[in-house]
Amino acid sequence: MRIALDAMGGDSGAPPLVKGAVMAVKRVDCEVLLVGDEEIIRQNLAACRCKSRRISVVPCSEVVGMCESPAESLKKTDSSISVAARLVREGKADALVSAGNTGCSLAHSLKNWGRLKGIKRPGIAHLMPTPRHPCLVLDLGAVVDCKPQHLLDFAIMGSVYSESILGRKRPTVGLLNNGEERSKGNALTLATYELLEHSHLNFVGNVEGGGIFEGDVDVVVCDGFTGNVVLKACEGAARMIMTGLKGVMKRNVFSLASALVLSPGMRKFKKRIDASEYGGAPLLGLNGICIISHGSSNARAVMNAIRVAGESVASGVNAHIIDELRVISEEIKIHEQAQVS
Amino acid sequence: MRIALDAMGGDSGAPPLVKGAVMAVKRVDCEVLLVGDEEIIRQNLAACRCKSRRISVVPCSEVVGMCESPAESLKKTDSSISVAARLVREGKADALVSAGNTGCSLAHSLKNWGRLKGIKRPGIAHLMPTPRHPCLVLDLGAVVDCKPQHLLDFAIMGSVYSESILGRKRPTVGLLNNGEERSKGNALTLATYELLEHSHLNFVGNVEGGGIFEGDVDVVVCDGFTGNVVLKACEGAARMIMTGLKGVMKRNVFSLASALVLSPGMRKFKKRIDASEYGGAPLLGLNGICIISHGSSNARAVMNAIRVAGESVASGVNAHIIDELRVISEEIKIHEQAQVS
Repeated sequence: MRIALDAMGGDSGAPPLVKGAVMAVKRVDCEVLLVGDEEIIRQNLAACRCKSRRISVVPCSEVVGMCESPAESLKKTDSSISVAARLVREGKADALVSAGNTGCSLAHSLKNWGRLKGIKRPGIAHLMPTPRHPCLVLDLGAVVDCKPQHLLDFAIMGSVYSESILGRKRPTVGLLNNGEERSKGNALTLATYELLEHSHLNFVGNVEGGGIFEGDVDVVVCDGFTGNVVLKACEGAARMIMTGLKGVMKRNVFSLASALVLSPGMRKFKKRIDASEYGGAPLLGLNGICIISHGSSNARAVMNAIRVAGESVASGVNAHIIDELRVISEEIKIHEQAQVS
Repeated sequence: MRIALDAMGGDSGAPPLVKGAVMAVKRVDCEVLLVGDEEIIRQNLAACRCKSRRISVVPCSEVVGMCESPAESLKKTDSSISVAARLVREGKADALVSAGNTGCSLAHSLKNWGRLKGIKRPGIAHLMPTPRHPCLVLDLGAVVDCKPQHLLDFAIMGSVYSESILGRKRPTVGLLNNGEERSKGNALTLATYELLEHSHLNFVGNVEGGGIFEGDVDVVVCDGFTGNVVLKACEGAARMIMTGLKGVMKRNVFSLASALVLSPGMRKFKKRIDASEYGGAPLLGLNGICIISHGSSNARAVMNAIRVAGESVASGVNAHIIDELRVISEEIKIHEQAQVS
């Protein structure tokens, strides 16, 4: 298994990425192709004292920034993300891992590999923490004006990924909505409900915003506008709470001492709700495997993303998605014909 | 100033509501009409040892539950919320406060009072906590399929309310979006951006989900579907974090002792991020004043909601909204004519 890693993406540049690759080749059965500025990568490899033959460097001259627009970034054909996606297209790598700009990773993957047969629009998935298993939410911004068919595709892809990679048996699928009752929703979710209930997916109905974090549902689907706003709002709320708590702990010497006592538990808790521990989030619906690691990923998170990329290839997740699409589109067709007659 | 209080709404029934009313007549220049089951209300008044002449009881026989559908609830014409809204319509009260089901409060207010002239659809607003001033977000579920004009109306109403009641000077207004750049958005937000930028509102552009909690913008507008999902998702994320922290604090005797040291600061922090302290949230666009207090409101929150209801009447917030609507619809018309010619 050969994984192409965009070694220039992410908030902290090459160091955690190279370190993650070094960890990965030790613990996971894979080779890693580090794509980026050769000198920087070699320096970082030297710092890790890594001489593994399972790591190689693919040099390139450009970098796509974290704030660049996907359309603009496509012009950078010698950027690390572009070259990494090309390696997969040419069969020189089996999957792509990037901690860079998600929109640009999607754009370059789509340009190089195209969509999976039957998928109208690929989606960006993300693992949200819950007290139990993480909840896979999609789409997070790839398709901002969705049709019901897009949401059905997201549900199929999310369900297959949850089963193949996250190990959930017959994953439950919920539809993000402004109320749990069947009658609730906007025009999009009302129409999507009908499609979902006539598929054989394990559809459990509408899920309110808070339901994402309760751990009762494995996959939650929504349009990319809502998903993006919800993800960023929750991150913002969590940041505000954590900053406020830090303030409480820094009030005086007693509170500082108390914080010290609590810090091992706090670290453990923070790690548990840190989705990057789960191994990155997939771009689903592409004719290839691309796993996105958070921009702030540490080496461990990068290693996990590489592991998940390998598992995605090995499990044939994309072939399963195509099969499931075929079956469910038949089911929907039969339901629609029954309604007409 | 006479405020009709739905004394049966809310998660804990009459006790915090009656107590809040008693607090209000002591501290705020107002009378309160407690609407609900007379016996229960009188028992609670007796428990508060309240004999104030500024509190009166308006008996009724029905109650609308927290989970009832607005349409169904309209049949209960002798319910506390229905009678309270009627008191305002008949001029026997100046404003309505409810801690009950928001959708039902909106339905009864709308049925009894109608809309403000020029407003197509009323909106539900909510105050979100930030490290600085709270941020007024609307709509939170009244209009799930919005047109750009609805979002413009929300912006106008939110801006006037923020200035008149929350004391912000020339409040900043942001459009909730999946990116800050002007080019970002779905069909709705792209079209709304154009309307907002050609009004004289202090429009600061797109705001991402996290921007709600940063304190840089006074009013954030969105469609009711997105607003509802975002509010509930953030509440869910906060609940998960707080539960997790409680777990950390209960690990052993040392962590319990540390938690004890931190508890005064924690209480203060929790109070700061508890929006009910700000005095409830308005339903905007109705031809009358209705302030919604959270279902779990304590007496202090109810008192604050009564205070805000009184201030809303005294400041003539609805008249200001009508004026502002007139001016801004002229501005938009001029812009549209300029585009045609």
